[in-house]
Amino acid sequence: MKFLVRIEVRLPPDLAPEARSELLEDERRRGRELKEAGLIVDIWRIPGRLENVGIWSAQGPTALHEALRSLPVAGYAEIEVTALARHPLTDDGDDLA
Amino acid sequence: MKFLVRIEVRLPPDLAPEARSELLEDERRRGRELKEAGLIVDIWRIPGRLENVGIWSAQGPTALHEALRSLPVAGYAEIEVTALARHPLTDDGDDLA
Amino acid sequence: MKFLVRIEVRLPPDLAPEARSELLEDERRRGRELKEAGLIVDIWRIPGRLENVGIWSAQGPTALHEALRSLPVAGYAEIEVTALARHPLTDDGDDLA
Amino acid sequence: MKFLVRIEVRLPPDLAPEARSELLEDERRRGRELKEAGLIVDIWRIPGRLENVGIWSAQGPTALHEALRSLPVAGYAEIEVTALARHPLTDDGDDLA
Amino acid sequence: MKFLVRIEVRLPPDLAPEARSELLEDERRRGRELKEAGLIVDIWRIPGRLENVGIWSAQGPTALHEALRSLPVAGYAEIEVTALARHPLTDDGDDLA
Amino acid sequence: MKFLVRIEVRLPPDLAPEARSELLEDERRRGRELKEAGLIVDIWRIPGRLENVGIWSAQGPTALHEALRSLPVAGYAEIEVTALARHPLTDDGDDLA
Amino acid sequence: MKFLVRIEVRLPPDLAPEARSELLEDERRRGRELKEAGLIVDIWRIPGRLENVGIWSAQGPTALHEALRSLPVAGYAEIEVTALARHPLTDDGDDLA
Amino acid sequence: MKFLVRIEVRLPPDLAPEARSELLEDERRRGRELKEAGLIVDIWRIPGRLENVGIWSAQGPTALHEALRSLPVAGYAEIEVTALARHPLTDDGDDLA
Amino acid sequence: MKFLVRIEVRLPPDLAPEARSELLEDERRRGRELKEAGLIVDIWRIPGRLENVGIWSAQGPTALHEALRSLPVAGYAEIEVTALARHPLTDDGDDLA
Amino acid sequence: MKFLVRIEVRLPPDLAPEARSELLEDERRRGRELKEAGLIVDIWRIPGRLENVGIWSAQGPTALHEALRSLPVAGYAEIEVTALARHPLTDDGDDLA
Repeated sequence: MKFLVRIEVRLPPDLAPEARSELLEDERRRGRELKEAGLIVDIWRIPGRLENVGIWSAQGPTALHEALRSLPVAGYAEIEVTALARHPLTDDGDDLA
Repeated sequence: MKFLVRIEVRLPPDLAPEARSELLEDERRRGRELKEAGLIVDIWRIPGRLENVGIWSAQGPTALHEALRSLPVAGYAEIEVTALARHPLTDDGDDLA
Repeated sequence: MKFLVRIEVRLPPDLAPEARSELLEDERRRGRELKEAGLIVDIWRIPGRLENVGIWSAQGPTALHEALRSLPVAGYAEIEVTALARHPLTDDGDDLA
Repeated sequence: MKFLVRIEVRLPPDLAPEARSELLEDERRRGRELKEAGLIVDIWRIPGRLENVGIWSAQGPTALHEALRSLPVAGYAEIEVTALARHPLTDDGDDLA
Repeated sequence: MKFLVRIEVRLPPDLAPEARSELLEDERRRGRELKEAGLIVDIWRIPGRLENVGIWSAQGPTALHEALRSLPVAGYAEIEVTALARHPLTDDGDDLA
Repeated sequence: MKFLVRIEVRLPPDLAPEARSELLEDERRRGRELKEAGLIVDIWRIPGRLENVGIWSAQGPTALHEALRSLPVAGYAEIEVTALARHPLTDDGDDLA
Repeated sequence: MKFLVRIEVRLPPDLAPEARSELLEDERRRGRELKEAGLIVDIWRIPGRLENVGIWSAQGPTALHEALRSLPVAGYAEIEVTALARHPLTDDGDDLA
Repeated sequence: MKFLVRIEVRLPPDLAPEARSELLEDERRRGRELKEAGLIVDIWRIPGRLENVGIWSAQGPTALHEALRSLPVAGYAEIEVTALARHPLTDDGDDLA
Repeated sequence: MKFLVRIEVRLPPDLAPEARSELLEDERRRGRELKEAGLIVDIWRIPGRLENVGIWSAQGPTALHEALRSLPVAGYAEIEVTALARHPLTDDGDDLA
Repeated sequence: MKFLVRIEVRLPPDLAPEARSELLEDERRRGRELKEAGLIVDIWRIPGRLENVGIWSAQGPTALHEALRSLPVAGYAEIEVTALARHPLTDDGDDLA
């Protein structure tokens, strides 16, 4: 099942530089794990912003929720999820395939 | 899988009374079918409005989409869907159950 | 009487880990009490967010208000309540039943 | 039980003058009935607009819904309802009184 | 002259418990004074929120402003005022009466 | 008493040119009357739009409402009114003066 | 270059059934052409709505604009485009690749 | 003086093809005149939409208003104007230059 | 040239009382200077709020910007400016006069 | 390729004066570099606000993103980017030129 996910990160400006670096490093590591596990299918940055939009794949909303809350930046992030239905133009696998 | 669905119906004020009656009668009939088939789990009216909010159950977003577009009022309706994840307080069946 | 209730929790990112754990543990305990008392009928998570949507049952808005403000996270939460009217498709008990 | 109700009427500009007069006359008549029956407790106009805000009293959301949909302008109106809880400063009768 | 007034209080979660208790106690005292003085005509809580909606009566916007800013929680509050015009259904006293 | 009033006119594009000319001519005539009567104190156009913003003076919201609804374009207009309170920097006459 | 594109189609309810069928058939044909030409990379339906979200690929905003306006439903559609920047987690080809 | 101007054109879908062609042809002609007269300094399309954003130059808001309302599509357009102040990074001529 | 200016002041609740008093005293002094210099033509309070709306007069947007940023509360304020065009009902001096 | 970029800077009111001066000095220096490098084509201030709107030129969204995040105020800024398509009225170079 596919989801459109927008994640906007709002780091407090007074976060200490080392804490910030460490947090973003942890985030990249967790991101690579989710990419390799197939949860993150595609992901892009919204230019100019600490925000990304991605296509995620999960067994359902609960599994997706757990993956998203496992992100180190989750506590600083505004996350929006849209469940996606199959469009006749694609044969992208989904719940009816 | 459960979804929160809001449906606001915007009937044009100049719809002929018979067309309106027939449309709403068709809507009730289709609604009963979806209720009996288990797609509509619970549904309430938003007081004062031609709008309802319901808990729907479907195999996934594509099956839900087809059920919603089968509603006779779909062409007049603004429909919003939110996929729901399991909350620890309930053991309501979902994709991880 | 039934209500649709959305609760979005906004924990400050600098909340100490122990304070956070304790707060969420208190919240779960109070949630279970309200579930057993029949105030929370059904509840789901909005995927990706510290937000839930639920169907609550109370004698009226004042009783609901008191239940909601008794939640340990109330001081950190944005809460939205919609009173629900009976829909012809259900015979869910309400004020006219 | 008390409700805050906002009703914005959007009459199409091309409504024939007689139809408009008749509709508004019917509306006034139905309004007086609801006022006398105690459903409308207080009502004011939002200056400059075909919009009013009122305090309504009904046994519950379903009874309120039926009263609101009985308004002749309901098909042209945008209606918003907020259920009201008792405030400690007033002893206005409500569900816990 | 009547006004619809919404007051949403946003207390910082880290306000010390005693400061919070004292502030709310001051607020109740000032509220009772304004109620007795006839400025607050009716007031209700929005269920689930630290927010109220009320009907206020004042000689005009300036007098209302001064009453609202005299509330101890004013510095923490988001306040919205709507001046109300007389509705034909009521003979509630106003500027033309 | 002073009010800030925004009026956005939404003429249907298919309004016949003569009807449109006549309507706008009526509007200008009524506007001049309200200006001479002192209801319109100042008025400007929002550049690029069929919208104006003005400072109006009336005995109260009900008198203002009647003046605004007397505008020939009222049926096509979105009107927003804000009651104004005296600012210490001006000695512009108001309800406390 | 990649773009996130949302297309919401708002067909007038009074569109004749044959005109509607023909329009949607034309739309599907044009959609298949754009898919085969590589402009539409991926596309999904937003459940419950006549709305889709897709990943489009074009040489730049002007080429994308021309493709989008070539859609038969363009005159009935609300279209939103977001240019996408490369995210470190993917090596999806873009302007810097 | 410079202005940021957004113009979104909302042509009714049932506009006759010839009327539409003629209107857009008139629009292009008027656009070229305003470009040559120096009122339109720069203009771009918002991809996917019948919308443009431009930098306009005029003696002031009144002159700009007249230029914008002279556009043949003005009756179908939503127009937003933002007056621009000089930024230290540019020596673009403005009211203080 | 005239501008409609809205200024909403958001003082942090934890601002020390003396700092707050001093800031507001400085603000009043600067306000009087701008009033006497003719930049502030008229100004009112939005009842219930730390917000004002005024008619300002300046040579252009850059001069207005400098006047607004010279306000002691500018760092705490949300400021919105709308350039105003002449309305046929007034002969208020503007750029074409 | 051209972009419309809005940057609103939200400096915390309690930022130390020297830190603020240094930050803004760094910002001006970086701004001049981007102006000379041709990334910033034109830029204006939104009057009354710490906000600017500019026309930027970059090879694509990724290069633009890197330029924008190189701004010293990026951590305090809300940045919005709109990719621009060529308008027939200009021959401003873009991806199809």
